[in-house]
Amino acid sequence: MSIQNKRKIINDPVFGFIHIPSGLLYDLIQHPYFQRLNRIKQLGLSYLVYPGAQHTRLQHSIGAMYLTVEAVKHLQFQGNEITDAEAEGVYAAVLLHDIGHAPFSHIMEHAFAEGMSHEEITMLMMRKINAEMDGKLDLALKIFENKYPKRFLHTLVSGQLDMDRMDYLRRDSFYTGVSEGTIGSARIIKMLDVADDKIVLEAKGIYSIEQFLIARRLMYWQVYFHKTSVAAERMLINIVRRAKELAGQGVELFASPALRYFLYNKVTKHDFLTKEETLANYALLDDSDLLCAIKVWMSHDDKVLSMLCDMFTNRKLFKIKESDVPFDDDVVSEQIARYMNRLGISEHEAAYFTYRGSFASDTYTKGEDNINILYRDGSTKDISEASDMLNISVLSKQVRKHYFCYMKDEE
Amino acid sequence: MSIQNKRKIINDPVFGFIHIPSGLLYDLIQHPYFQRLNRIKQLGLSYLVYPGAQHTRLQHSIGAMYLTVEAVKHLQFQGNEITDAEAEGVYAAVLLHDIGHAPFSHIMEHAFAEGMSHEEITMLMMRKINAEMDGKLDLALKIFENKYPKRFLHTLVSGQLDMDRMDYLRRDSFYTGVSEGTIGSARIIKMLDVADDKIVLEAKGIYSIEQFLIARRLMYWQVYFHKTSVAAERMLINIVRRAKELAGQGVELFASPALRYFLYNKVTKHDFLTKEETLANYALLDDSDLLCAIKVWMSHDDKVLSMLCDMFTNRKLFKIKESDVPFDDDVVSEQIARYMNRLGISEHEAAYFTYRGSFASDTYTKGEDNINILYRDGSTKDISEASDMLNISVLSKQVRKHYFCYMKDEE
Amino acid sequence: MSIQNKRKIINDPVFGFIHIPSGLLYDLIQHPYFQRLNRIKQLGLSYLVYPGAQHTRLQHSIGAMYLTVEAVKHLQFQGNEITDAEAEGVYAAVLLHDIGHAPFSHIMEHAFAEGMSHEEITMLMMRKINAEMDGKLDLALKIFENKYPKRFLHTLVSGQLDMDRMDYLRRDSFYTGVSEGTIGSARIIKMLDVADDKIVLEAKGIYSIEQFLIARRLMYWQVYFHKTSVAAERMLINIVRRAKELAGQGVELFASPALRYFLYNKVTKHDFLTKEETLANYALLDDSDLLCAIKVWMSHDDKVLSMLCDMFTNRKLFKIKESDVPFDDDVVSEQIARYMNRLGISEHEAAYFTYRGSFASDTYTKGEDNINILYRDGSTKDISEASDMLNISVLSKQVRKHYFCYMKDEE
Amino acid sequence: MSIQNKRKIINDPVFGFIHIPSGLLYDLIQHPYFQRLNRIKQLGLSYLVYPGAQHTRLQHSIGAMYLTVEAVKHLQFQGNEITDAEAEGVYAAVLLHDIGHAPFSHIMEHAFAEGMSHEEITMLMMRKINAEMDGKLDLALKIFENKYPKRFLHTLVSGQLDMDRMDYLRRDSFYTGVSEGTIGSARIIKMLDVADDKIVLEAKGIYSIEQFLIARRLMYWQVYFHKTSVAAERMLINIVRRAKELAGQGVELFASPALRYFLYNKVTKHDFLTKEETLANYALLDDSDLLCAIKVWMSHDDKVLSMLCDMFTNRKLFKIKESDVPFDDDVVSEQIARYMNRLGISEHEAAYFTYRGSFASDTYTKGEDNINILYRDGSTKDISEASDMLNISVLSKQVRKHYFCYMKDEE
Repeated sequence: MSIQNKRKIINDPVFGFIHIPSGLLYDLIQHPYFQRLNRIKQLGLSYLVYPGAQHTRLQHSIGAMYLTVEAVKHLQFQGNEITDAEAEGVYAAVLLHDIGHAPFSHIMEHAFAEGMSHEEITMLMMRKINAEMDGKLDLALKIFENKYPKRFLHTLVSGQLDMDRMDYLRRDSFYTGVSEGTIGSARIIKMLDVADDKIVLEAKGIYSIEQFLIARRLMYWQVYFHKTSVAAERMLINIVRRAKELAGQGVELFASPALRYFLYNKVTKHDFLTKEETLANYALLDDSDLLCAIKVWMSHDDKVLSMLCDMFTNRKLFKIKESDVPFDDDVVSEQIARYMNRLGISEHEAAYFTYRGSFASDTYTKGEDNINILYRDGSTKDISEASDMLNISVLSKQVRKHYFCYMKDEE
Repeated sequence: MSIQNKRKIINDPVFGFIHIPSGLLYDLIQHPYFQRLNRIKQLGLSYLVYPGAQHTRLQHSIGAMYLTVEAVKHLQFQGNEITDAEAEGVYAAVLLHDIGHAPFSHIMEHAFAEGMSHEEITMLMMRKINAEMDGKLDLALKIFENKYPKRFLHTLVSGQLDMDRMDYLRRDSFYTGVSEGTIGSARIIKMLDVADDKIVLEAKGIYSIEQFLIARRLMYWQVYFHKTSVAAERMLINIVRRAKELAGQGVELFASPALRYFLYNKVTKHDFLTKEETLANYALLDDSDLLCAIKVWMSHDDKVLSMLCDMFTNRKLFKIKESDVPFDDDVVSEQIARYMNRLGISEHEAAYFTYRGSFASDTYTKGEDNINILYRDGSTKDISEASDMLNISVLSKQVRKHYFCYMKDEE
Repeated sequence: MSIQNKRKIINDPVFGFIHIPSGLLYDLIQHPYFQRLNRIKQLGLSYLVYPGAQHTRLQHSIGAMYLTVEAVKHLQFQGNEITDAEAEGVYAAVLLHDIGHAPFSHIMEHAFAEGMSHEEITMLMMRKINAEMDGKLDLALKIFENKYPKRFLHTLVSGQLDMDRMDYLRRDSFYTGVSEGTIGSARIIKMLDVADDKIVLEAKGIYSIEQFLIARRLMYWQVYFHKTSVAAERMLINIVRRAKELAGQGVELFASPALRYFLYNKVTKHDFLTKEETLANYALLDDSDLLCAIKVWMSHDDKVLSMLCDMFTNRKLFKIKESDVPFDDDVVSEQIARYMNRLGISEHEAAYFTYRGSFASDTYTKGEDNINILYRDGSTKDISEASDMLNISVLSKQVRKHYFCYMKDEE
Repeated sequence: MSIQNKRKIINDPVFGFIHIPSGLLYDLIQHPYFQRLNRIKQLGLSYLVYPGAQHTRLQHSIGAMYLTVEAVKHLQFQGNEITDAEAEGVYAAVLLHDIGHAPFSHIMEHAFAEGMSHEEITMLMMRKINAEMDGKLDLALKIFENKYPKRFLHTLVSGQLDMDRMDYLRRDSFYTGVSEGTIGSARIIKMLDVADDKIVLEAKGIYSIEQFLIARRLMYWQVYFHKTSVAAERMLINIVRRAKELAGQGVELFASPALRYFLYNKVTKHDFLTKEETLANYALLDDSDLLCAIKVWMSHDDKVLSMLCDMFTNRKLFKIKESDVPFDDDVVSEQIARYMNRLGISEHEAAYFTYRGSFASDTYTKGEDNINILYRDGSTKDISEASDMLNISVLSKQVRKHYFCYMKDEE
């Protein structure tokens, strides 16, 4: 952490020196739950496309905390009361907002426990730490859950212009080398204010927000939904699915005990809420459990599993086709038939070499946590109405793309 | 120029080492007309707002040439025929595209010779150099004037996605410190191709173009039309107007001979076309003639001129108000009346302490030199139709802002 | 890899777009041996101090190849004959120069097979690939082994100014955020030439080389030998030692088969040379095997192993003291005695919570692959004689620092 | 200045947003003496070699102030008492440390008033401002003149590790594009402390200081003493010398009144101290007075002056030879003879087309304001003794280079 004796400082390639604002924050950074984030890549498998994208959730979380410190200082300067305790609370909430993430971040979101989002697991972990720390996170938890009276503080943690997004856009842009995806985080922060208990943006900041929304959109299509990256992710999902299926049939699979726990048990939300061991095992999982197991599974007896794992490890990734409309069943079944024929496997097995799905990026969702623009006369407007550029209906429109992943024929 | 012996190289903070592609290009860079650009700031008076913005037209022109080299190499790789002579022609055309600029670039565009654009002067200067060089610029001139059969080459020089814009957006973003205004010039260039004798962009580049258009828009409002900057520019325009008026009355004014030529003569387009001395004097003008004269005029007997010059030199700039609708005559005349009263000057004189005007930025103009998107099936579409984000009508809509500049009351 | 259809391009945050120069190079990048490098961190455990330092050997190898392409182009321009085959050979040699690295790079260098350096394993792997590729790497191997007649080509692969160092200094500086450790790789490359079959540097480049040597020295002490980083590395070494000891006693340990192979067998150089399985298992090892196993070992019955693994995983790192002279036996044995007492363990076991050692950085070693400066008269001089700044004796002097690592008393 | 309403902020490409710490500092920035620095290039004529180097003394001064704010905050955190008044005093002293500079900075240092350094003029100007501001700069002046009891404050303004050097090295590196000349200003500041009323550096910062000294050395030879740049500077000096000579003979020369004052009078230090008009005229001079006059002088009757001015304006610069020993009189007189012959001018006149001189860069001067290293035991040592790398005698040794500039023969 490059923590220096008297003053805790972290050297960040994106923001320079970052000061850790208090002893509590330092203790949270040192907590095993938080240190685990240093073994989970921020961008999942994007490093297979952008080799620079090896950065972790830990760096991102610290960066988001840094931006929150800057934002709080600015809001205080603007005359908004934020007490020291509230400031520390919101810093802690931002720092910990991602601790519930699964290995490879979003990709494995529901792979280990159906119906359990990473936000819910984050909450469980925060409560656990809070118990260990005798309630020092009470206020942070309230802010995180949006139960704290000063609701604008929650918006810094989670909203359409939160410090999470601010950091990840700049950081992902930096590490992928997609430099035009960068955003003016410092400029945006200088234009924040509070009105009606909400974070608002001074009217002159409107162009910065447009740029922020478009940069986010660029990053979605250029990085987050990059075809090769999506293909690799679907492959990983199919691997874990197949492994769970085999585990369910009692087939022996190499796995760390924590990974084994989730492969051999059908873990539910209920388990998380009732059994200590579930969260304990989850807290031990990181990218290495999967990477390591998958390499071992390359020589497993199951043809489907071993082939997928070999293809994954050695970067012989799925091909992918995209379309504005869903892919026909025929396309899928023809491909599956080809694999059945070639490999002498069942339809069910052959399906593991394909993946049909879709993704949608809404650049801006009009709803509870709108981006509001503050005018000099004190009135506010939603960005989608304030911008003369970004058409409201277009801005909020989800763009959905359908894709079909499949194994290369002559692999 | 950091020209090294064997290989001509220029060290550019934006693009790193830039190689000068040929001896002809080197000779053009050394030409007095081109060297003059090193004494004309790229962003006029923006340095009064963004102190870093001291970069010159010379750097920009060399940067644009660099991008053109990259683009030509890529287009050749894609299978488009561009001969060595054509390549050199387009490099020369881009390198010289700005030589006709007046001091402080756009601000003084029509101050010295009404009805004469900088493009027209550029053409005159290119022809002059061509004559000196025995026709070595024939091809460059044809491309510049869009009279060369391979019309796509002209688009690299002048179009909605030309190398000029590519360079100035990146460079102005770099020097102002408005880092989020940067664009992915390298990525865009990698996606260029030619179809129907036009530069087109592969479909997957659509997000980069959206980002390019929005970054351009941001730079317009954040930098090019920055209120303080506009106020300073209008002040400069009024100074030159007043100086010309006094000159017309025979009042003696300190000025370099070249500046004097334009102050004391009503220079017209006709003069440029018929008298050698007009272009010769113009070619001697740069920022220093104005900066130097204005300082001297601070102690001129004329109260209007001396006050304006003092305010300009010592950064006591006009105030500015903006509005979506034009300012009423009343607003202006009330302000003028106040100055008449306070300074004991005529209405005509007092008007020099105000400036009413408007500016408009159209992010994208649908017309001849559209940005066309190339699809896999070979078809092309205008970006405004291809983008699902940037609403066509909005995209091409001019946003006009009205402003009213005036001297601070208690100055 | 962001490999585009027609032209293979990799997006690198340090150097921008990198073109893969040929099909052979592309195939090498796709080889499992090379892809494995994307799972081995370039800077071992430095990410525990500099969270940004997550970059991998794969990125570094591609970066070094990029710089080699630039250097070869420049040397050719200077009139030195380098054929296409030679160019491809040297690119391949540089690309593959690190494939033999163990997990966490240098730290585990001798942990798995005593007396076997990563260079030797690199050679074995290159030969293996060469056999698979029917000799396409013959020339690359000759250059790598310095058996090719044009010996200057080898210097680009391995020497005191090789492309390896050029890349890692810039890259490590970039990812750690120690921005002043950056070097002028582009400038240095522009000043390379060949004399007496050696790479030499034009005399005017002498200041750049001084800066290069001093930046390297800064990076050594600021990053590579950072105290916390060294403490973490020694902890990792002790963990693997203990695990091997327990394995030798037949104690059961969780491990991937590849890791198990090296824990339960005393693998020697001879094994590498005679048994296919040795290299095959080695080629499966990466950071994840260790990270994953260590987490599991946190709950192993062996107190020493479990404590070390818990401390490692949760960043409760060894403390470290440094000295210019070796630490006394007394210091070590007193500390060990304290642990024996506190934990009720043997002296042998307690010793695992300490580590005494030293490291030495010689900024410049005068020897075979000197950095030679070329003067206008054609004569050359060793940099240590050519520089009036960097005293020769000092420059080549090894600076040795002794350290003593130990577990915090009240952990 | 991009001064925002409530909070004064300047957008700096090097350091990002810079806050102006107080109203006094803001008023100083607005003062005509300070605004004049925005018309004086930081690096004189380096822009003729590095086209990016157009940055001004104003930007540098604001950057140095920014670093001082950072340093003061850090020193206070370390427990050193610095009152608000002292902090503002040292900020003001740093902000104004360069206001006395002549056009083109150092080049014209003694051209206008012999025996008058820019520091002495700075002092005169500070006193003038202080008088206007009713003594608000009393403390700043004491610190600037090293008459304030807390002497360590002066070291921040002027010393071997002062904020001036910190800023100019980073800034000049940024604008020239010589990126490896950058220094770790943030890291160095984090390691400052005070001992014996002096600024000292914690021992672990020793490598950063070595890097700082070597980067400075690189910048000296790569930028500040770049041959082409030196040649241009000597040309400018000769131009002004010739102009003064002609003025002394009563020859009429175009010049702004301020420039005329210094050309037609033999201004001495005594004049500065006794006549108000001397400083008043000096305060009106900036780069534009010279650039503008030189262009006009291109058509002056005096052959020497007109030729020099033409060569200067159109970048037909002197050639330059360098040597470790002084150039013989013969070399000079032979060259002069050639010009006499060719141009039919006197020896005295022909000498204007040559310039013989030398420059010396001492990387580190042992003396009053040493860089002292602070050890854990409280003892301090001079860096030249503390560093095991930078040999003391070498470090302080002046490296002197001799040069001879001359007009190209066939110009």
